[in-house]
Amino acid sequence: MNLEQAARHVGGEYKGDGSLELSGARSIGEAEAGHITFMAHKKYLPSLKASGASAVIVGQEIETDKAQIVVRSPALAFARLLGVFHPEKRLAPGVDPRAAIGPNVTLGNNVTVSALVSIGEGTVVGDESVLHPGVVVGEGCQIGHHVTIHPNVTLYAGTVIGNHVVLHAGVVVGADGFGYTLDEKGRHYKVPQVGRVVIDDHVEIGANTCIDRAALGVTHVKEGVKIDNLVQVAHNCTLGEHSILVAQVGLAGSCKLGHHVVLAGQVGLADHVTIGDQAILSAQSGTFRDIEAGGVYGGSPSVPLSTWKKYVTVLPKLPELAKKVRDLDARLNAIENETPPS
Amino acid sequence: MNLEQAARHVGGEYKGDGSLELSGARSIGEAEAGHITFMAHKKYLPSLKASGASAVIVGQEIETDKAQIVVRSPALAFARLLGVFHPEKRLAPGVDPRAAIGPNVTLGNNVTVSALVSIGEGTVVGDESVLHPGVVVGEGCQIGHHVTIHPNVTLYAGTVIGNHVVLHAGVVVGADGFGYTLDEKGRHYKVPQVGRVVIDDHVEIGANTCIDRAALGVTHVKEGVKIDNLVQVAHNCTLGEHSILVAQVGLAGSCKLGHHVVLAGQVGLADHVTIGDQAILSAQSGTFRDIEAGGVYGGSPSVPLSTWKKYVTVLPKLPELAKKVRDLDARLNAIENETPPS
Amino acid sequence: MNLEQAARHVGGEYKGDGSLELSGARSIGEAEAGHITFMAHKKYLPSLKASGASAVIVGQEIETDKAQIVVRSPALAFARLLGVFHPEKRLAPGVDPRAAIGPNVTLGNNVTVSALVSIGEGTVVGDESVLHPGVVVGEGCQIGHHVTIHPNVTLYAGTVIGNHVVLHAGVVVGADGFGYTLDEKGRHYKVPQVGRVVIDDHVEIGANTCIDRAALGVTHVKEGVKIDNLVQVAHNCTLGEHSILVAQVGLAGSCKLGHHVVLAGQVGLADHVTIGDQAILSAQSGTFRDIEAGGVYGGSPSVPLSTWKKYVTVLPKLPELAKKVRDLDARLNAIENETPPS
Repeated sequence: MNLEQAARHVGGEYKGDGSLELSGARSIGEAEAGHITFMAHKKYLPSLKASGASAVIVGQEIETDKAQIVVRSPALAFARLLGVFHPEKRLAPGVDPRAAIGPNVTLGNNVTVSALVSIGEGTVVGDESVLHPGVVVGEGCQIGHHVTIHPNVTLYAGTVIGNHVVLHAGVVVGADGFGYTLDEKGRHYKVPQVGRVVIDDHVEIGANTCIDRAALGVTHVKEGVKIDNLVQVAHNCTLGEHSILVAQVGLAGSCKLGHHVVLAGQVGLADHVTIGDQAILSAQSGTFRDIEAGGVYGGSPSVPLSTWKKYVTVLPKLPELAKKVRDLDARLNAIENETPPS
Repeated sequence: MNLEQAARHVGGEYKGDGSLELSGARSIGEAEAGHITFMAHKKYLPSLKASGASAVIVGQEIETDKAQIVVRSPALAFARLLGVFHPEKRLAPGVDPRAAIGPNVTLGNNVTVSALVSIGEGTVVGDESVLHPGVVVGEGCQIGHHVTIHPNVTLYAGTVIGNHVVLHAGVVVGADGFGYTLDEKGRHYKVPQVGRVVIDDHVEIGANTCIDRAALGVTHVKEGVKIDNLVQVAHNCTLGEHSILVAQVGLAGSCKLGHHVVLAGQVGLADHVTIGDQAILSAQSGTFRDIEAGGVYGGSPSVPLSTWKKYVTVLPKLPELAKKVRDLDARLNAIENETPPS
Repeated sequence: MNLEQAARHVGGEYKGDGSLELSGARSIGEAEAGHITFMAHKKYLPSLKASGASAVIVGQEIETDKAQIVVRSPALAFARLLGVFHPEKRLAPGVDPRAAIGPNVTLGNNVTVSALVSIGEGTVVGDESVLHPGVVVGEGCQIGHHVTIHPNVTLYAGTVIGNHVVLHAGVVVGADGFGYTLDEKGRHYKVPQVGRVVIDDHVEIGANTCIDRAALGVTHVKEGVKIDNLVQVAHNCTLGEHSILVAQVGLAGSCKLGHHVVLAGQVGLADHVTIGDQAILSAQSGTFRDIEAGGVYGGSPSVPLSTWKKYVTVLPKLPELAKKVRDLDARLNAIENETPPS
């Protein structure tokens, strides 16, 4: 791929020799001759100058002796070129005879069913989908087309997966929600979890994350949601379009996220909490109250992030503050007890 | 099932036409004609009125044109009826020839050993138990009767599982505890973890949860304990009867929980902490101190929940409070430095 | 093994009858006649007196009627003897015909490849390594010698594992890092994750822990690092030699840990954070700032642990403190508004 082709691929304009051959895409610090890199902000100009890269993707033309591609989003363009230089390796299509496939399973065109995969009765797998070794799919699941299911994933019976979905290793979709009620003897009686999980198109779910089936109805992960590793999504949650759940986030039952919500690492939501569109919770925060659309919150229990940032600077000074208050009290006492001038 | 049969099944009394046919059990909001629902509290009367349900389970007879079943615990009765309308599907009994079963394995009656299951030498599996695909059971394990082990669960060698236990997908029982001591060169020398895990009857463990084997002795999960997904139970812990561990809880080594303890989501316990019977820790709290029986705690480090609820309302006002104290100081200074009246 | 042999094995000196036969190693509370135990501190002398142990490992000779082994680190010596009394059981070498092994896979001497293992094309496994059932190894991985991979572990393509490494059940190494950039329509566009994971010698990783591959370059776990269960290590992190990550710790992208760092349970690090050599973060703490070498921190956001310990004692008294400030204000008002003496 040369500079001109690269520019065309990312919808940008090139400056310099269009026939310049590009051999790879690298970060500014790692790029060498022949590589293209990108610069997200002008503050990286010194790094760019020091970089061995032959070409750079920028948002606006800059002064440099390197070849340039000018495009609205350099990060996006760089991601696209990375995909060209590192095309995804896909397991070859075909059904391995060592897979255990139940009756009435329907497989689309060019599906890969690896060795040591188990597929339950009546499940449907769409065209071009790939099931890696160790994947276990329960009965009556629907899996769309162009889906990649990495090793040792478990889909419980009745799970519905859309198209272009990626499930990373160890993901569990559709396990029973955590619902009990006390019986007459003070033991936990299980509330049957008879709902299911529906995952829409273009969702990606990280390793060892768990999405529980609904008690009744549906746990719903909507289009374009991206979930990191080791996240817990409890029964009956709804995750709005293009939301982001970073690693180790935990949602209790029946939470509702709007679209483009961001929950940073280790955030926790109590049950039945609603998070408005485009709201953000910062890392390790938690809320048992609803958050309004566009809200940016931090802390546990969470407050507006700007408030949190201010009060946490006072926390280390609390012992000093308490002492000051005791001192003020003593000084005030002294004044109050003064013998008034006679 | 008609109304009279349903009432008998849950040990309640029916009001209305006993021959009314029930076609399903649904929540108040989702129920339609033919369905039975339940009402846990009188505040839901308007929802009930708006509901399409033909029948309702209540704690005390109410005024309604719907058929009723009156019973002490409506939630429990509803859970029981859900089980009738959604009977659990069980994998057919039998041993799949693609399972890898070691020597001297003893299988009870009507056991299901699915394809792609591995069972180590000398393990015993009780009657009616079900091992889903991808389950790996180490050597010398004892698994009781009516146990369900979902896909891709791992039991390390020597694990003991009681009766009527459910292990969800990806659970790991009996991995080595996290125990090291420094050697002469400042490297971590592994303390051999030579104990095991014992899980008593009627325990349910959520997806991808880990229960480590004891260093010496036993990590013990007692009868009726319910554990949610992604929970960590370290070596040598004891979890008392009917305790509840919500998702992403983490217990360090040698913790002891009494009976009916509740640890809400993302709670953390330091090592050797004892939690008294029926104590509750609220979500995201943590403690390195023991908690007395019946205690209700929140925060990290945890304090009585009522105390926590009060102090967290002051936190956002801390910057203002600190400013007020500075103001008071200045005002007091002014008074102290005043020229006394001559 | 007798007392003399035990003393020689741990590099210590024995006091008493060297021919005393030892039948096991137990903790002070559990030891019976014939057992050896250890005493880490003199405060345990009463426990030792009450113990049934026939011998004890101590740091300095004590007065006791039990046989003794005197050695610099009693805990280390005890761990070594535990290993003698409980030798690790290793699965028998050999390749099970039910394993699915790709083309051009190279297996060293005495390797164990269990049933239901899948190994991708071109992978190399070193001498004496053991792959338990359900392990899935992607294409082009390098696995060293004396490596133990427990059941249901997944290694993505291109992962490099050193020698004497232990991976516990359900571990996922090399899943894609969590990297997206917004496209023109506000959807998350995946940044191809084209780096890999390198794990050095003598690393042990706990059950269901996830180590993501680098976006570009390497996620690097250096020699002797020990990681507990359910830990998240994001793309491009570097974990320095002999560091300890306790259960449920989460590292965002590109964090750098020095050597001998300790992150206690449920700690969270924001992206690009650097933690200096031998620094310690206490349980449930979190930082988005770098921590200096040797620093000991607590809280979220973290501060020096001693500071944290002090301010958290004030937290429960905050409502009282706020009230006191209001009282002071009122009292001061009264003085300020006093009619000056005429």
